[in-house]
Amino acid sequence: MSVTYPGGFVAAGVACGIKSDAMLDLALIDAGRPVPTAAVFTLNTAAAPPVILSRRHVADGWARAVVVNSGCANAATGHRGHAAALRMSELAARRLRCEAQDVIVCSTGPIGDVVPVDRVEAGLVAAVPDIGGGDAAAVAILTTDRRPKQETLDGDGFRVGGMAKGAGMIRPDMATMLGFLTTDAVVEPARLQRVLGRAVEVSFNALDIDGCESTNDTVVLMASGASGVEPDEEALTAATEEICRRLARQMAEDAEGATRVVTVEIDGASDSQEARVLARAVADSALVRSSFYGADPNWGRVVAALGTTRIELDLDAVSISYDGVMVAAGGVGTGVDPDSLSSKLAGAFTLRVEVGAGPGACSLLTTDLTPDYVRFNGERS
Amino acid sequence: MSVTYPGGFVAAGVACGIKSDAMLDLALIDAGRPVPTAAVFTLNTAAAPPVILSRRHVADGWARAVVVNSGCANAATGHRGHAAALRMSELAARRLRCEAQDVIVCSTGPIGDVVPVDRVEAGLVAAVPDIGGGDAAAVAILTTDRRPKQETLDGDGFRVGGMAKGAGMIRPDMATMLGFLTTDAVVEPARLQRVLGRAVEVSFNALDIDGCESTNDTVVLMASGASGVEPDEEALTAATEEICRRLARQMAEDAEGATRVVTVEIDGASDSQEARVLARAVADSALVRSSFYGADPNWGRVVAALGTTRIELDLDAVSISYDGVMVAAGGVGTGVDPDSLSSKLAGAFTLRVEVGAGPGACSLLTTDLTPDYVRFNGERS
Repeated sequence: MSVTYPGGFVAAGVACGIKSDAMLDLALIDAGRPVPTAAVFTLNTAAAPPVILSRRHVADGWARAVVVNSGCANAATGHRGHAAALRMSELAARRLRCEAQDVIVCSTGPIGDVVPVDRVEAGLVAAVPDIGGGDAAAVAILTTDRRPKQETLDGDGFRVGGMAKGAGMIRPDMATMLGFLTTDAVVEPARLQRVLGRAVEVSFNALDIDGCESTNDTVVLMASGASGVEPDEEALTAATEEICRRLARQMAEDAEGATRVVTVEIDGASDSQEARVLARAVADSALVRSSFYGADPNWGRVVAALGTTRIELDLDAVSISYDGVMVAAGGVGTGVDPDSLSSKLAGAFTLRVEVGAGPGACSLLTTDLTPDYVRFNGERS
Repeated sequence: MSVTYPGGFVAAGVACGIKSDAMLDLALIDAGRPVPTAAVFTLNTAAAPPVILSRRHVADGWARAVVVNSGCANAATGHRGHAAALRMSELAARRLRCEAQDVIVCSTGPIGDVVPVDRVEAGLVAAVPDIGGGDAAAVAILTTDRRPKQETLDGDGFRVGGMAKGAGMIRPDMATMLGFLTTDAVVEPARLQRVLGRAVEVSFNALDIDGCESTNDTVVLMASGASGVEPDEEALTAATEEICRRLARQMAEDAEGATRVVTVEIDGASDSQEARVLARAVADSALVRSSFYGADPNWGRVVAALGTTRIELDLDAVSISYDGVMVAAGGVGTGVDPDSLSSKLAGAFTLRVEVGAGPGACSLLTTDLTPDYVRFNGERS
């Protein structure tokens, strides 16, 4: 159970034939009436038609339902794709007896094909949302994820639930990161958008598998108000952040081909934006991520990656540690035997880089780059 | 023969024990007297001590000699590294009876160790530069390159020669790209620097294996004037560009783990800078480069990569072709059967992307991302 854990939501997951083998491929979340809704979308300028449509539909801060298909991203599909996304919202609206403008539409899967609306229509007819439908919905949004990702949390008198799919850009079918969050807290739309923005920043936006942002990335947060409790903004933000962090962690752990989840921490940068640029340079570096795979505390590659940002570095102030063991300090190696560290660099570990004495810090999650990653992504889908 | 093909240069390559197994690891190029010299260095802000020293030594536009060691990058080595780089130039100057300021120093190999100057000194004593020494020098600058890279060219009354090492960022020992060019043309320093800047831009800077710039990248061009011929700037630029392009191509072909060399062409961007940003986004994408490995004309990933640049795209104007076969036009797929294209996507091919009707164009060389790349880079060096 996830999105139906907070009061006021029902959900469903059905198989409508977009994917083969009768796999679940259509999910519906329904709040029963328009409720305050916030959303964050990809900044990719080749954003897919469902993203462009949903941005418009949620612009007023309200929505009633989310309909999601997997197996087809409906991206790079031109005018036909835009028409199909709109039609998908209209079909859901007809089924739910609401306005199409209150329906958010998401698609995920390979790029280039228009979503087959006739199958979506058949799926919507078959979908009977109920409170137990969250589990099926969490499966129906998956592409090549190995497992569904659901989380729930109890706040002080309110609940938050969430489901997600994706594992960074692991293969084209998984390129997209989708997150659907619900709460029964009482909160007005503008505040809800702030809460979601802050939560996404430290969770999904701090997940960096290979530096790409897909054409379809979407995170939605709906607030039913069913609890009757209006938490203060900090409390709601903390709960939402926690759910988002857990879902992001699940995504990193589910990254196909990856064998290690690595937290990259930058500290001492001049400000948080600079820290983020430095952290991304490390977390995106194919050379650094290959060294993770080799359990090699190759701090030289980390230094080189920092330098590619063009940010002025005081190398004498740089220190680097792997899971607490300092391998470089004052910009030079400490002489630690790499072999003594290898056994620590398994499963999950933290790479911490101090670049100076400034207040800027950033923490990102990434994974190792592995031969399997390339094999998966080299296969024609 | 390469750097000693133009008149006025001698060279040597010797083994001084920085690498194991008596492999050649120290190269010397000597013009016999200070001559006009141009250089282009890495923009990585963690630039290694030899880069910082050589920038200073070539700032006046003149140099007599270049000394290069492989097997150790002398990068991230702090004050001791700076002292060692300076000492290396002094040792070469003593050997050649010239000023240390007229010696350019380059180092390549793993990051983190100080270059052993005593071995460099022994190597310099053993080195007897002569006109046949270019071949040994071309070997001595290599790290894990599979073969030396040399080129020569006859201009109208003048000659250009060059040698290079590197293959993109294929493994830490190869991280660095070094290029050494010579000409016997008569040319003054300011013009020589313009010539080199233009040549590097369309060759080494258009080689994009994984988007990184190392701590030690250096390209040097020396002009002896021995031919007595002063070519016009365009003629000298054309010849230098040609040598640089050929050397860059050799580097791409030598990329360990790579099975395909791909030319990424962007056309129709609003200007050349925008075209370069778009081309880099495609050439850097792990997903796109994995699809090259799979011989998969996955144009959807290309569109997604373009979008990550945040440059506004008119998707309806985007067309994409692989070796002349158009797979997407007007922003949507043309329905070409991917299987019919696979056989073309072997060895070397061109991915051409038109993004509009603007005048901006850019062409980059890259390679596929392969399981072997990750395996090489995962090994501890």
